[in-house]
Amino acid sequence: MTDLTAFVERERSRLLADLSDWLSIPSVSTLPEHAADCRRAAEWIAARLGKLGFRVDTIETDRHPILWAEGPAVPGAPTVLCYGHYDVQPPDPLNEWITPPFQPTVRNGKIYARGTADDKGQVFCVVSALEGLSRANGRLPLNVRLLIEGEEEVGSKGLTKFLTAEPDRTRADAVLVTDVHMVAPGYPSVDAALRGIVHAEIHVRTLKSDLHSGLYGGAAPNAIETLWHLLERLKGPDGKIRVPGIYGRVKRPSAKELKAWKALPIKEKGFRAEAGAKALNGETKFSFLERIWARPTLEVHGIVGGFTGAGAKTVIPAEATAKISLRLVPDQRAKEVAAQLRRAVQRAAPKYADVTVTILSQSDPVQTPLDAWPFEVLDRAYREVWKRGISPIRSGGSIPIVPLLQQRKAPVLLTGIGLPDDGLHGPNEKLNLDQLWKGIVLFGRFFELIGDRRR
Amino acid sequence: MTDLTAFVERERSRLLADLSDWLSIPSVSTLPEHAADCRRAAEWIAARLGKLGFRVDTIETDRHPILWAEGPAVPGAPTVLCYGHYDVQPPDPLNEWITPPFQPTVRNGKIYARGTADDKGQVFCVVSALEGLSRANGRLPLNVRLLIEGEEEVGSKGLTKFLTAEPDRTRADAVLVTDVHMVAPGYPSVDAALRGIVHAEIHVRTLKSDLHSGLYGGAAPNAIETLWHLLERLKGPDGKIRVPGIYGRVKRPSAKELKAWKALPIKEKGFRAEAGAKALNGETKFSFLERIWARPTLEVHGIVGGFTGAGAKTVIPAEATAKISLRLVPDQRAKEVAAQLRRAVQRAAPKYADVTVTILSQSDPVQTPLDAWPFEVLDRAYREVWKRGISPIRSGGSIPIVPLLQQRKAPVLLTGIGLPDDGLHGPNEKLNLDQLWKGIVLFGRFFELIGDRRR
Repeated sequence: MTDLTAFVERERSRLLADLSDWLSIPSVSTLPEHAADCRRAAEWIAARLGKLGFRVDTIETDRHPILWAEGPAVPGAPTVLCYGHYDVQPPDPLNEWITPPFQPTVRNGKIYARGTADDKGQVFCVVSALEGLSRANGRLPLNVRLLIEGEEEVGSKGLTKFLTAEPDRTRADAVLVTDVHMVAPGYPSVDAALRGIVHAEIHVRTLKSDLHSGLYGGAAPNAIETLWHLLERLKGPDGKIRVPGIYGRVKRPSAKELKAWKALPIKEKGFRAEAGAKALNGETKFSFLERIWARPTLEVHGIVGGFTGAGAKTVIPAEATAKISLRLVPDQRAKEVAAQLRRAVQRAAPKYADVTVTILSQSDPVQTPLDAWPFEVLDRAYREVWKRGISPIRSGGSIPIVPLLQQRKAPVLLTGIGLPDDGLHGPNEKLNLDQLWKGIVLFGRFFELIGDRRR
Repeated sequence: MTDLTAFVERERSRLLADLSDWLSIPSVSTLPEHAADCRRAAEWIAARLGKLGFRVDTIETDRHPILWAEGPAVPGAPTVLCYGHYDVQPPDPLNEWITPPFQPTVRNGKIYARGTADDKGQVFCVVSALEGLSRANGRLPLNVRLLIEGEEEVGSKGLTKFLTAEPDRTRADAVLVTDVHMVAPGYPSVDAALRGIVHAEIHVRTLKSDLHSGLYGGAAPNAIETLWHLLERLKGPDGKIRVPGIYGRVKRPSAKELKAWKALPIKEKGFRAEAGAKALNGETKFSFLERIWARPTLEVHGIVGGFTGAGAKTVIPAEATAKISLRLVPDQRAKEVAAQLRRAVQRAAPKYADVTVTILSQSDPVQTPLDAWPFEVLDRAYREVWKRGISPIRSGGSIPIVPLLQQRKAPVLLTGIGLPDDGLHGPNEKLNLDQLWKGIVLFGRFFELIGDRRR
């Protein structure tokens, strides 16, 4: 049993400096102006893996490169494929960050920066575990492959193509996906399901150009008003989605699963406080965990139209746009939901308006049976390092590539060392350093135990 | 009878160059970064009036200065107070302008620039009429005062104060307000009523910061969604405003007035085409003219919230804002409507959200009896120059200062030489040059006929 705790103790400050270096690269995949930063972030982690003796390939896509890496062959040992991503969400709203999103800063034992928890910090944790094992023993205990992509936040189109085109290069006995988080401090967890997503943009045009609201108000159609009436037709104040057919395939979690959730150390009050809300809303006849893990949602992420500068401009706006997404649960299908959304919007669109729906990306929900042997290994590693086995939970988030990984034979282990209050996608995203250090020991132990399995 | 047609023929190219010079100053009153431009625009017209022998005072306000100007005394002649404004609306959306908004350009006999019709072009028309009379005769036929403000588009707070504080300096026998337009080409018109306005901003906050829509979607309140449900409670898809009490004081136009509107040369089809809409909407049980002239409206001018950049960011937004206005008709009162709006918003606001309403500006609607003698003079001037007398109409727009001018003894003449398709407040605002040249002759003749009145 390798003493990775000693490695972490000794290398802590260097590791922190290295992570900060990586986090300071603004690899925002959705913004074209950050394309070069995405490439730099890929090169950064490629160089690190190269130093560990990994063979690294940079696979080009239409947008940001994928890194495929393979450790030195360990004959007879199982193979684990580790998945993560180096791209990050945009940092807006910038003014709400206490320290700048791409100037990593440590405060109270936490490192703050965009990408700390989602997902650079967690990828760094896994790679550091491999580094620790390799340094301590001069070799790795198992066959490892890594897939680190740069399009997770924008739909993983490149990686989808690669997985389909080159199945051999990503074959493994188990897939470790460290792009989710632990259900609560001290409670290691594995996700038994992820929600899928249909991401879309709705655009409304009612006029050739903006008009004077005095001269035309009362008769000329307002694009913002048209958009809000349309959104009201898609989702009511009761939290119910009004897209016809949307709930048709929704499968309720089993009684056993619902019961297990009740035993988890997360309660509505704490969740509400962590969300920073005065009260929760949505379909309140379901528990908050069922709402975020097992119910489909429709959220508007951004809306814009008309005059949004300071002061006053009394126009009837000609155009308005909303960015929306639907999160999907087992057994919904992304393609079907996208078609249901299109139909619902077209049905709700008034004759006086030109309304278009553009599907930006989509992925199916997934459900993972947790009975394969690698879960036992992961459970044992957590018991040793965290003093507690894994709780089976779900995640309300979506990882576009997981449905495809799931279709293969190897079990997919969705686990992570981030915490629920890490602030993913929002301002002041952070990672607790004690989770990071303990995570290095955990993943090291997991790799070692996997290596033991068939030796 | 002064031959102003000859003056216009002779000076046409210089006048056009001068007007272009004034229009090229971006005097956008609502944007703080254009404060210096507003002052420059005021100085420009002050210099011109100075050259005509007017005494000009620059009256400072909290924002942009008012110009008060007085022509040489003409003992025994009536006094006309001319009102207009040098401030303009913001030019957005910039990408829809064929030529830049502050680079005046002539195409097909029309001059395109922000402020051509609203209101620099019309002020320039009146001042040029005074210039023509003064040059031809070496003196003016009447006593003229001018009030040219720089806050018309932002609520006229400074001018309201000035009118109340110094009633003597604005005393007159008639007030000429050239900030409205002609009902149709060839149909001179006078407005018998203007709508009032309550301009407000609604701000919604549901969370401390934006949240990840996967991890919190289904339970955490979305600010944009809260805002659209709230707007739906304020106005339905049938065009009816749902603010309780809002229609209580609305007075229907008289049967005579409604009949006169039917005879006007503007029809729904042409209005729709000019609006650039596939179809009109609103309270369709009323005629389109009644809807834009005699019904209150609620319009959203701008909305913003969440992520509005290119690409995807799947957040639950914490904040959203809408800029709205209500247009008011006789006998509604702005103060009462503002209170009704506040109450309606607070009633519609869910417990989980912090919702604020900020009233940005307000003004009452006005109705003007058209039977005073200066209307007869104006009618005669139009008959001579335009070969047709005035049609009594209304305007759906609001001029904040008119209710105050209206309270005095002197009749208020709301007339203009702009046309309905001038594109006020929108992109590609224009003024037809033949209307401008004819307008100079018209206002010159009006001043002359007023001067004749008591000589």
